[in-house]
Amino acid sequence: METHLSSKTKQIIISPDHPFVIIGERINPTRRKALMESLARGDFSIALDDARKQVATGAHVLDVNAGVPGADEPKLLEGLARALTQEVDAPLCFDSANPAALEAALAAYEGKALINSTTGEEKMMNTVLPLTAKYHAAVIGVVTDDSGVPATPEARLAVARKIVQRAADYGMSPEDVVIDCLALTVSADSLAGRVTLDSLQLIRQELGVNLSLGASNVSFGLPDRVAINAAYLALGIARGMTAAITDPTIPELATTIRACDLLMGRDEYAMRWIKAYRAARKAKA
Amino acid sequence: METHLSSKTKQIIISPDHPFVIIGERINPTRRKALMESLARGDFSIALDDARKQVATGAHVLDVNAGVPGADEPKLLEGLARALTQEVDAPLCFDSANPAALEAALAAYEGKALINSTTGEEKMMNTVLPLTAKYHAAVIGVVTDDSGVPATPEARLAVARKIVQRAADYGMSPEDVVIDCLALTVSADSLAGRVTLDSLQLIRQELGVNLSLGASNVSFGLPDRVAINAAYLALGIARGMTAAITDPTIPELATTIRACDLLMGRDEYAMRWIKAYRAARKAKA
Repeated sequence: METHLSSKTKQIIISPDHPFVIIGERINPTRRKALMESLARGDFSIALDDARKQVATGAHVLDVNAGVPGADEPKLLEGLARALTQEVDAPLCFDSANPAALEAALAAYEGKALINSTTGEEKMMNTVLPLTAKYHAAVIGVVTDDSGVPATPEARLAVARKIVQRAADYGMSPEDVVIDCLALTVSADSLAGRVTLDSLQLIRQELGVNLSLGASNVSFGLPDRVAINAAYLALGIARGMTAAITDPTIPELATTIRACDLLMGRDEYAMRWIKAYRAARKAKA
Repeated sequence: METHLSSKTKQIIISPDHPFVIIGERINPTRRKALMESLARGDFSIALDDARKQVATGAHVLDVNAGVPGADEPKLLEGLARALTQEVDAPLCFDSANPAALEAALAAYEGKALINSTTGEEKMMNTVLPLTAKYHAAVIGVVTDDSGVPATPEARLAVARKIVQRAADYGMSPEDVVIDCLALTVSADSLAGRVTLDSLQLIRQELGVNLSLGASNVSFGLPDRVAINAAYLALGIARGMTAAITDPTIPELATTIRACDLLMGRDEYAMRWIKAYRAARKAKA
């Protein structure tokens, strides 16, 4: 199954037969004070710098969050989207809980965006899915619903199925729903990682949809988070994950993803591996 | 399914419900000139040092290879096994293509050893399996046979099944056969990694046996081999691999394995992760 995303000038395909898709997570002011302050004064320079750096290190798509307290989010997200489109050719992923902001950005966007996100909650689906359908976008569906976070892979599959079916009611095909199996922190629950990995495998097998994870939360509260996040990306990829919201400017993460593409048979003659190695060596020298 | 190995003083269990088992690969004179020369003069100091370092960095079992050209391998392997048993409590894995050497080491060994290895070749099975059964050892069964290396996961499953069944003919239970799905180099064949990963999953699902890999060959001929090998360990673990012959003295590999245990729900309260992190920080300071 192929999820197509596009900017005005570039198409990206999420699929098990294509290189793993990195959705760069850095353009998000939460916990980033300097970015937050710059966005608050309508200054996009830090965001544009993040965009360039993420694309240079391997991001295929850029997550864009303009959640600045007190700001006019629709205006800010739309403006940021326009500025980013001038700067890089990567398709965008609009990350907002504000429907008006999503609509403003989608209406202005020339391409097929990804929306981050809906859950299986009724209110969310009734708001986000019609918007997704109206603008012919794709959407991330997070496997939680009005009953909370399902504890088992089977229950997460049920929520994923509900989101895919509801999307179909709005005329969307399953290709345009990317399921997020929800990575909770292993420091709070030792089995959290495993349940998510088992969910990836089950949902991939039963629904065939593309799968993404916000893969940085799993290590929250633990030391050496990068090593945990890198291992988690590889484990997830082995279980059928085809995209992740992560930070490619962290070399260990980008390298792990490239190694996984190589080992999963998605890098013929190891060309991308060797090219990235040479580029890194040149950058160091 | 649990594979039990033991030295005189320590038991190790290979199983999906236990921490991933690291079989330390360093005591092998192939391509290690100083070790080769020391073993040739009956000097075990380098080997014993390798043993200590591997156990200190996380090896649960030690692979022992005494293949020194011109040496009396049975005598050397037996002597080395005795010396190692004095030095460390990790169970041993006897690595030899010489049946007399295997028998000498097994006869002297007080515990339940692992044998590396048989294949599905008739001559090999007829030699190695009776020895394994006679000494109540366990054996690694590599999925290649008289027809060569099978190209597909299904064909590798067939060889694995043959080895397990032949072992049963000698009175061995499937617990005592650890299947090696054969990691070939991705630089020679882009699909080599993927076929092995798919084989792990299929064989685990169909036979339920424990699975090991010699996980260092996959990166042969490529730059930044450690990053490839680390990613491969994680991918394999996600697919059901429960042990690997690898080098835990390479920090990235040991760290990746510990992260995978954490993320697969095999490290309650992240205690081993945090302990290893503290030890590493202390060692640095």
